[in-house]
Amino acid sequence: MRTYKLTVVYDGTRYQGWQRQKTTEMTIQEVLETAITQVAGRETKIDGSGRTDGGVHAKGQTASVTLPGKVAENEFRLKLNAVLPEDVRVKEMLLMKNGFHARQNAKGKRYEYFVDTREKPDVFTRKYCYHYPYKLNISAMKEAAGYLTGTHDFAGFTDKKDEISTIRTIYDIIIEKQGDKVRMEYCGTGFMYHMVRILTGTLLEIGIGKRAPKEAAKALEAGQREYAGFLAPAMGLFLKEVYYE
Amino acid sequence: MRTYKLTVVYDGTRYQGWQRQKTTEMTIQEVLETAITQVAGRETKIDGSGRTDGGVHAKGQTASVTLPGKVAENEFRLKLNAVLPEDVRVKEMLLMKNGFHARQNAKGKRYEYFVDTREKPDVFTRKYCYHYPYKLNISAMKEAAGYLTGTHDFAGFTDKKDEISTIRTIYDIIIEKQGDKVRMEYCGTGFMYHMVRILTGTLLEIGIGKRAPKEAAKALEAGQREYAGFLAPAMGLFLKEVYYE
Repeated sequence: MRTYKLTVVYDGTRYQGWQRQKTTEMTIQEVLETAITQVAGRETKIDGSGRTDGGVHAKGQTASVTLPGKVAENEFRLKLNAVLPEDVRVKEMLLMKNGFHARQNAKGKRYEYFVDTREKPDVFTRKYCYHYPYKLNISAMKEAAGYLTGTHDFAGFTDKKDEISTIRTIYDIIIEKQGDKVRMEYCGTGFMYHMVRILTGTLLEIGIGKRAPKEAAKALEAGQREYAGFLAPAMGLFLKEVYYE
Repeated sequence: MRTYKLTVVYDGTRYQGWQRQKTTEMTIQEVLETAITQVAGRETKIDGSGRTDGGVHAKGQTASVTLPGKVAENEFRLKLNAVLPEDVRVKEMLLMKNGFHARQNAKGKRYEYFVDTREKPDVFTRKYCYHYPYKLNISAMKEAAGYLTGTHDFAGFTDKKDEISTIRTIYDIIIEKQGDKVRMEYCGTGFMYHMVRILTGTLLEIGIGKRAPKEAAKALEAGQREYAGFLAPAMGLFLKEVYYE
């Protein structure tokens, strides 16, 4: 038995997220498991580093898979890519120590969020940016990002009610203007359900002046969802990287 | 009567090219004329700087339109964008001298072509790059581009047989590697039917070593289609800019 780590890139537009569903909805996990089962010649399951919501993209999602024996990684990976649909691609396949688990061993994650502030969305990136046609005050957003960075109880920044602990560490939030677009990058120990999208919605409301930067700190203190901003849409979000030791 | 120049951006994926068809096929000209007719409140026709083939994109196609009187350009443009589909956008609307004609007054054009050389296409740009998974010898391609630059008879580089003159001037061909992608840019007085795509196919065949760089010069001299390379697909091509005096 050998365990491999797969690094996966996908355009989430067509998919109901990562996690295999009991319904007929198409998911990334399902198309990957179908491809691996076909190439390996036996029913195979994988474990992702975590779920991504419907419509969220990935430049570096990871998954662990255990195969009955050693395979030629690159050849196996090319065979997977040959049968996968054009919006899902395995970028890397690495042999890991036995027992490696993509979710349990993950040390941190990096997400990216793209906002298009033009009056009408850029036709070539319209599926990969959230269209928010307002002038954003980047320095106000950066000030707010300062309050959110660090180890905090992010109870107000998730839509899931049953987390054992809602304490997380955000190492860094980068906010940068790229022409008419704004790129936001979040790096941290882990993010709860909807957390990156709520952080983004909060920062955008601060960017348009609907809220003062200090309200980001108040939303942390309050620990209640209604103090944080709106849920920014999935289409602008990318899981960029998953970190391991 | 006032004549305006429209600068138009479009994702050509869904369209049968620029030129209005007599069939039911959807074209860029048709959706623009429908939108202008709606906003102007009267049937209006436009003249493009030239046709683009089915599937070709534009970052800066131009068209001239004559309206019965003066309009507030930016307001009119925003109204057009509000009714246009999300893959067609009017970037600029400029009042021109009476008699301006987008095709007749054009002095030159710039096209861009993107090639993705990865084993499997980048999922996020797959509709905007031609997937050609081979190692390209950029310096051989640049040498060939040198033969093609200048004023020549490009009779061998078109699929249209009835041009009055097949002499054209190419000012510049830029070939640059961008990671796993290659960007090719063509600037010239004008390009015949399929000309940019045949130039690209010829350069790609030189890039993979199927032809020597000097064969580009031979294809010019021969003046026959079979001496030039294959017709590179439409999806990688963008009309970037149309020049006027």
